[in-house]
Amino acid sequence: MNIHRRLFLLSLIFFQFITAQNISSVESRISDLYIKSLTKGMSYSWLEHLSKNIGGRLSGSLNTERAIDWVRNELINISLDSVWLQPVMVPKWVRGSFEYANIESSPGNIINVNICSLGGSIATPKGGIKAKVVEVKNLEELKSIGRKNINGKIVFFNRPMEPGFIDTFKAYEGALDQRYGGAAEAAKYGAVAVIVRSMNLRLDDYPHTGEMSYGSLPISKRIPAAAISTNDAELLSSMISLNPNLNFFLRQDCKNYPDVKSYNVIGQIKGTDFPEKIILVGAHIDSWDLGDGAHDDGAGVVQCMEVLRLLKITNYKPKNTLRLVLFVNEENGGSGAKAYSEIISKKREKHILALESDSGAFAPKGFVFDTGEAYFERILKWKPYFQPYNINLFKIDYIGTDFRLLNNDALVLSGLKTDSQRYFIYHHSEIDTFETINKRELEIGSATMAALIFLTDYIGLE
Amino acid sequence: MNIHRRLFLLSLIFFQFITAQNISSVESRISDLYIKSLTKGMSYSWLEHLSKNIGGRLSGSLNTERAIDWVRNELINISLDSVWLQPVMVPKWVRGSFEYANIESSPGNIINVNICSLGGSIATPKGGIKAKVVEVKNLEELKSIGRKNINGKIVFFNRPMEPGFIDTFKAYEGALDQRYGGAAEAAKYGAVAVIVRSMNLRLDDYPHTGEMSYGSLPISKRIPAAAISTNDAELLSSMISLNPNLNFFLRQDCKNYPDVKSYNVIGQIKGTDFPEKIILVGAHIDSWDLGDGAHDDGAGVVQCMEVLRLLKITNYKPKNTLRLVLFVNEENGGSGAKAYSEIISKKREKHILALESDSGAFAPKGFVFDTGEAYFERILKWKPYFQPYNINLFKIDYIGTDFRLLNNDALVLSGLKTDSQRYFIYHHSEIDTFETINKRELEIGSATMAALIFLTDYIGLE
Repeated sequence: MNIHRRLFLLSLIFFQFITAQNISSVESRISDLYIKSLTKGMSYSWLEHLSKNIGGRLSGSLNTERAIDWVRNELINISLDSVWLQPVMVPKWVRGSFEYANIESSPGNIINVNICSLGGSIATPKGGIKAKVVEVKNLEELKSIGRKNINGKIVFFNRPMEPGFIDTFKAYEGALDQRYGGAAEAAKYGAVAVIVRSMNLRLDDYPHTGEMSYGSLPISKRIPAAAISTNDAELLSSMISLNPNLNFFLRQDCKNYPDVKSYNVIGQIKGTDFPEKIILVGAHIDSWDLGDGAHDDGAGVVQCMEVLRLLKITNYKPKNTLRLVLFVNEENGGSGAKAYSEIISKKREKHILALESDSGAFAPKGFVFDTGEAYFERILKWKPYFQPYNINLFKIDYIGTDFRLLNNDALVLSGLKTDSQRYFIYHHSEIDTFETINKRELEIGSATMAALIFLTDYIGLE
Repeated sequence: MNIHRRLFLLSLIFFQFITAQNISSVESRISDLYIKSLTKGMSYSWLEHLSKNIGGRLSGSLNTERAIDWVRNELINISLDSVWLQPVMVPKWVRGSFEYANIESSPGNIINVNICSLGGSIATPKGGIKAKVVEVKNLEELKSIGRKNINGKIVFFNRPMEPGFIDTFKAYEGALDQRYGGAAEAAKYGAVAVIVRSMNLRLDDYPHTGEMSYGSLPISKRIPAAAISTNDAELLSSMISLNPNLNFFLRQDCKNYPDVKSYNVIGQIKGTDFPEKIILVGAHIDSWDLGDGAHDDGAGVVQCMEVLRLLKITNYKPKNTLRLVLFVNEENGGSGAKAYSEIISKKREKHILALESDSGAFAPKGFVFDTGEAYFERILKWKPYFQPYNINLFKIDYIGTDFRLLNNDALVLSGLKTDSQRYFIYHHSEIDTFETINKRELEIGSATMAALIFLTDYIGLE
């Protein structure tokens, strides 16, 4: 775009820019949060450290403990009033050193495919599993195919995420049952393993891991579960249609260990007027192990840290206590969130609003809220404050898992909502890495969260 | 994000998804446009062809003529009622084969830097130019420094785009005068060349080209102009502060040729009720030459094509004439837009609404409109139709150059507004390529444009 004819607007813009600073203290404070985040922010360099110097942070791993230590130190460095660790027992599942699969269309005729173990899966026997494949679209189809067609075979769940949804999280929810419950269900019909199409709207070569569960299935009945890349799911499906008797070979040596001790990281700025009332920002410090967890949820971690830092460096003194909680073990168990909700019930702490960031470092569109109409109406009155920043989405919706447990305590649960089109390209795969982060999108997210926390504290909800 | 607890929402979502189809014919038609774009769209494969098989399309180049031929054929293939080419004379500027620059901090101590000629610049002498450098932030600073400090030197314009702006186009406008008018101004004070910091908010190694003008400066007084990458602008600045007497060497052999013949590509579906009234979609078919112009403005080209195709494949029969214009020579002259505006004045054709796409294939946020309050109020009533697609931005603002000339004719000028955070990473540089396109973001843009065109035709503005 050539816009030299736009030059005449220049003086007008600068005029607007300067006067905006003086309209009112609310507007100017919010403007200051955005400008500081974009010009003197720490979000990006913090995320670089967490992603590149520490890396993937699966619960129970050494990396997770390193991340917890580092975050605690950074929170002490930015001079919060208090910083502490809450001990939590977390599951320890380890991927192991070897994941391999191939399609054998005829003896000796082998094509390697890209797979990864699903989180929580058992290993295959040492020599791997080789079996015929039955392809299904959903859990119901297992029943209609029946044990006689499944017994001894590998079940291949190949229902794609629905591309027609605008919100890709809805498409994810619509495909998720295969990954989460596919193995437990297929085992009931005698399957020897399951292969699940990766939760990815794009066709590419990266398998995407994620949590699976055997439910109440006894240990002796459990079968290995792996995800296959979308390109290889398409390949496998077309090869099956040519040769329904082809063999699939899977070998993986992941393992579940006994639970180990870990921590939620908590820090806060004490309120001047109502120290007993808490306004919470939260994210999860753990991640999957394939990438470095920059989007899920490294971005959320540094955005929460940056919210408190931005409010401090703009000299804002909160009336209520502003607290940050970085939950451990969101990805495969949720024990961090559970431990936090238990301690706040026990202490009878009151949360006014809890704001989560767990949808990747993409351009923020707004917020979702899980609250009653009355509180939502009050929050809607703040919408004009966000208009200069193109933050337009304010809606009632479901809030992510870690915050679910606060439901009975907090007046308002909320979540930062980012543009979701690119999220599932990276999610739970080896390409969820720092290189895919856009600095400005991350920073605008931090400022947007800080603005909501500021408004909640300064104007109040009641 | 682990959201297995969301599974219970699944049935609810599908229910909403299905019932949404039947609410009314307006909503269901719009839903159909989005779903068809995302599941059976041509935007992405068209853009792949235009970007990878044709490539950069600077006015006057063979590639531009190939693009014009290809687009015309595709428009015939999708069975528009008529497709034609409007002849236009366009400038022909050629980059040449050699662009090179270095910093010589002391004799023999040389560091190469990344530069590219600005569009329209003259070449250096064959052996290049070596001179001392004077760094300035803006055009006004030249005056205060004065001829005695500038004469015989290279002027280095190094004012960064302002990161505090949320809309990066505003930051672009605020830095653009250096690139567009810097050479003409510096030449008046005896400068021998100008180097301009690339219009890029990010620090990286890619120089960004773009249009420059010598204004009324006589040919004998003109001096070469080049852009330098943001990393190298930072490097040069810090080296100047250590050694103000360092030398800079620049060599380039770009050249202006006489104007050549080219074409605007025009196609239309004739209206059933008001064939003389035109609803226009437009983009520019030319691009800069460094990358393949996928974002600027290949995306706009295929989105406009897709608007007409989507309306056809969803069996919509427009009441007004729906026309597509792909302007040539937007980047360095604007002769295509001028020729189109001349012909419509001559023919006294009436445009109801003209919708441009020229802000890259990023997630659409909404539209800007250049129109009177009355029309804007009517359009605002359509906003709820866009809510399911997270299209929330409807505002009065400036519209891009090609459409400017329609101002006296059309009731409403409008532009698709995308999220702007990533645009200037790629803009006019060698990394504006197809690999940086997100398929879904592009497709949602096409559907969003199609929805506005449908509403304008079906509901009407008057």
